[in-house]
Amino acid sequence: MTISYADAVALDAADELRRFREQFHTHDDPVAYLDGNSLGRPPRQTLRRVAEVLDHEWGERLIRSWEERWVELPGQVGDRLADACLGAAPGQTVIADSTSVNLYKVLHAACGLRPDRDEIVIDEADFPTDRYLVESVAEQRGLAVRRVEADPVAGVTAADLDGVLGPRTAAVLLSHVDYRSGALVDLAVMTGRIHEAGAVAVWDLCHSAGVVPIGLDAAGADFAVGCTYKYLNAGPGAPAFLYVARRHLDRVRQPVAGWWSAADMFAMAPEYEPAPSIRRMLSGTANVVGITAVDEGVRMVAEAGVEEIRAKAVGLTDLCVDLTDAWLAPAGFQVASPRDAARRGGHVSIRCGRARELSAAMVRAGVIPDFRNPDLIRLGLSPLTTSYVELWSAMDVVRRLVHR
Amino acid sequence: MTISYADAVALDAADELRRFREQFHTHDDPVAYLDGNSLGRPPRQTLRRVAEVLDHEWGERLIRSWEERWVELPGQVGDRLADACLGAAPGQTVIADSTSVNLYKVLHAACGLRPDRDEIVIDEADFPTDRYLVESVAEQRGLAVRRVEADPVAGVTAADLDGVLGPRTAAVLLSHVDYRSGALVDLAVMTGRIHEAGAVAVWDLCHSAGVVPIGLDAAGADFAVGCTYKYLNAGPGAPAFLYVARRHLDRVRQPVAGWWSAADMFAMAPEYEPAPSIRRMLSGTANVVGITAVDEGVRMVAEAGVEEIRAKAVGLTDLCVDLTDAWLAPAGFQVASPRDAARRGGHVSIRCGRARELSAAMVRAGVIPDFRNPDLIRLGLSPLTTSYVELWSAMDVVRRLVHR
Repeated sequence: MTISYADAVALDAADELRRFREQFHTHDDPVAYLDGNSLGRPPRQTLRRVAEVLDHEWGERLIRSWEERWVELPGQVGDRLADACLGAAPGQTVIADSTSVNLYKVLHAACGLRPDRDEIVIDEADFPTDRYLVESVAEQRGLAVRRVEADPVAGVTAADLDGVLGPRTAAVLLSHVDYRSGALVDLAVMTGRIHEAGAVAVWDLCHSAGVVPIGLDAAGADFAVGCTYKYLNAGPGAPAFLYVARRHLDRVRQPVAGWWSAADMFAMAPEYEPAPSIRRMLSGTANVVGITAVDEGVRMVAEAGVEEIRAKAVGLTDLCVDLTDAWLAPAGFQVASPRDAARRGGHVSIRCGRARELSAAMVRAGVIPDFRNPDLIRLGLSPLTTSYVELWSAMDVVRRLVHR
Repeated sequence: MTISYADAVALDAADELRRFREQFHTHDDPVAYLDGNSLGRPPRQTLRRVAEVLDHEWGERLIRSWEERWVELPGQVGDRLADACLGAAPGQTVIADSTSVNLYKVLHAACGLRPDRDEIVIDEADFPTDRYLVESVAEQRGLAVRRVEADPVAGVTAADLDGVLGPRTAAVLLSHVDYRSGALVDLAVMTGRIHEAGAVAVWDLCHSAGVVPIGLDAAGADFAVGCTYKYLNAGPGAPAFLYVARRHLDRVRQPVAGWWSAADMFAMAPEYEPAPSIRRMLSGTANVVGITAVDEGVRMVAEAGVEEIRAKAVGLTDLCVDLTDAWLAPAGFQVASPRDAARRGGHVSIRCGRARELSAAMVRAGVIPDFRNPDLIRLGLSPLTTSYVELWSAMDVVRRLVHR
C-alpha cells in the first residue's frame, strides 16, 4: 500500500531528528532539496561561527590566533570527526586540503608500504577523481592499474575481487558508498579480503561520512579520505578529511611534504623531518574558516548520533524506493540502487529515459535532484535536513511531470 | 635628522592610500600590527561578502550556485589577481589549494618540461616549504638538488647562480622577496639568466604579491605560486594562486590530477584528459568561501594600484630603517634587510640579541611583530593598513623597551 501524504506527515511527527531541520538556514524556495549529498545545507550556527572567526579570531586577535587556537585545528577537528563519524580513535585523522589532494597523498603513502608489489586496484566505475588519481600515482610509481568490474547496482562485492587481488597487489582503493547507485560496501569484510591478499586498504568515504556508521578502527582499515560538504554540511569546497591507522604512522611518507608536515614547523629546520604523528600528512597552511565549518557540521552529527541518522536514512530511502515503484515504474522508471536498505547508503538513483530533461523540469518545479550522465536521477536524502513530507512532495511533483 | 611624531602625522596626511585603512575591520587593540606580511587584516567588505555567500549563494541557491557562479571562480578570480598583482594576461592563473600544494604541482610541471635534465636548483636559505618540496619532487623524479648560497641580507643575485646553473639544470625555484631579509630579487634579470641556461624559472611570490609590482609576462617567467593571506588580506589559510605561462599550457602535466583538472569534469569520462587550459593545474573542488575572500583582497589592491602600494611600502620601510639606525643601532641592533629601497620588499628585519624575549615583550606592549628564529625581529609593513604613525609609535615602544 502506497504511503499517503498523511502518512508522511505522521512519519515526520515521529522523527527523532526533526528538531535538527530548523537548525539549518533555509529560504522558502525550493519545494524540495534532494541534493544534500552533493552539497548539504548551511547550519545556522555555522554562519554565526564563521562570522565570529572573521570578526574576533582574525580581526581582533590577528596573527596571535595561530598560536592561541588555529594551529591545532586540523588534528582537533579531525579527532572530533573521527569520533562522531569514522569510528576512529584520536590521533589518526586531520582536516585538510581537498579529497583529491588527500587521495593523492594516501595513495602514495599506501603504495609506499608495499614497495615490493607493483599493482594498484580500483573499481572501474568509481568516481572520476579516484580513477584519475590512481592512474597518476601508478604512473609515477611504475605500477600497473587493475580494475574491478562489478554489477552497477549492487556495487563491488568480495567475489568481484577474486582473480584481481594477488601477491602483486600493493593497494586497493574502494568507495564505501557508490556515488551513482548508492550501493554500500561492507567495509570490514572487504578490508579483511584486501588484507588476506597482503595489500593495503584505502577507503573513499565521501558518500558515507555522516550518514552511515563507519568503523574504521574495528575494520582494521589502513587509510581513508572523504569530503565534508555532503552529509557534514560544511559548505562548498570545505576542506576534506584524511585518516591513517595509527600502526602505520611511524612509517608512512607522502610527497606533498610542505612545512605543515614537518616535525617542528616553526623551527624552519634545514633538514626535513616528518612529524611523528598524523600531522606528517599535512602540506600547507590550514584553511581556518573551512575547518570551522567542518567542526560545526561534525558537532551536529555527533549530537544527533550517526546511528539515528542512519535509521532515518533507511526510512527515507525506503520511502523513495516504494514511491518510485508505485508511481514511476509504470512509466518505465527503474530503481538503480540496491533494494535491500542494508546494502544502500543515503541516496537513491532512478534510471529513466530523458533523465537530463526530467532533471531540468524538476528544478523548474522547485525540486532539486542531481543528474548523473546519461540516464540517472539521483536523489540525495540528508537525514538532518530532509523531511518525509519534503520527499513525498518531491516524488509527487515527479509523478505529475512524468504523467503529464 | 630623525623623523618626529609630527612628521609621521604629516606623512599620513599626505598618504594617497590612507582611505583604505578604514576599509579594514579593526579593534582598538593592538597599538601597532606589524605582521600583515604573515596575516593581513580583514577587509570589512570581505566579512559582508562571505556572509552573502553563506546566506544567499549557499543557503538559497544551494547546489545551483555551482553552475551559476562557483565553477568559474578559480580562473575568474585568478585572472583578476593576475591583472592587479602579477602583470599577467588572462588564462594563466588560478586560485586553488595552498602554496605548498601548488608549489608541488608546478615543480613537477616545470621539471616535466626538461625531461633530459637531472638537476633542480633552490636557494639554500629559502622558506622551508620550498626547500622540502624541492627535495620531495627531486626524490620522486630522480633529480639532484643543487643549492644556491647567497648573502643573507642582499639575497640571491645573478652572480650567485654562476657555477650552479648549467646544462643539467631542469628548473630553478626562487623567492621574489626573501621571507627573512625582505631582499627583492630582480625577477626579469634572474628569469633571463635561468633561461640562458636552458632551464625553467619557478617563482615563489608569497612575499611580493600585492606589495611589489610583478611583471611575470614581461619577464617571460614560466611558473609562479604565492599565498593570499599576507598583502592580499584574504584570511587565515585562504587559497593560494598558481600561474603557468600560456606558452606551456598545452604541454604541462601535474600529478595531482583530480577531476577539476579534467577536460570535461562533469562528463565523468572513463579516460583522463587534461583540460586544454590553466584548469589542468586544478585538483579538487574549489574553496568557494576562500576564493571569495581572495577576490575582495584583490579588488582592494586593484583599486589602490600596486604602484601606489609599492611607493608607500618604500616610504614605510625607509622610515623603519631610519628609526632603527637612530634609536636601536646604539643598543647593538642591525638592519638585516637591504638599505636600498629598490632592493627591498614590504618588510624589514632587525637583528638583535634576545630577539625572542624582545618579541614577546613587544606583544605585551601592544606591538605585534614576527619573530624569526634565532635572532630576527621582522616588521611587516602593509601599505593598505599600516600608517606612518602606527609604525612610528611601534618603534617608539621598542626604543623604550630596549633602553629600559
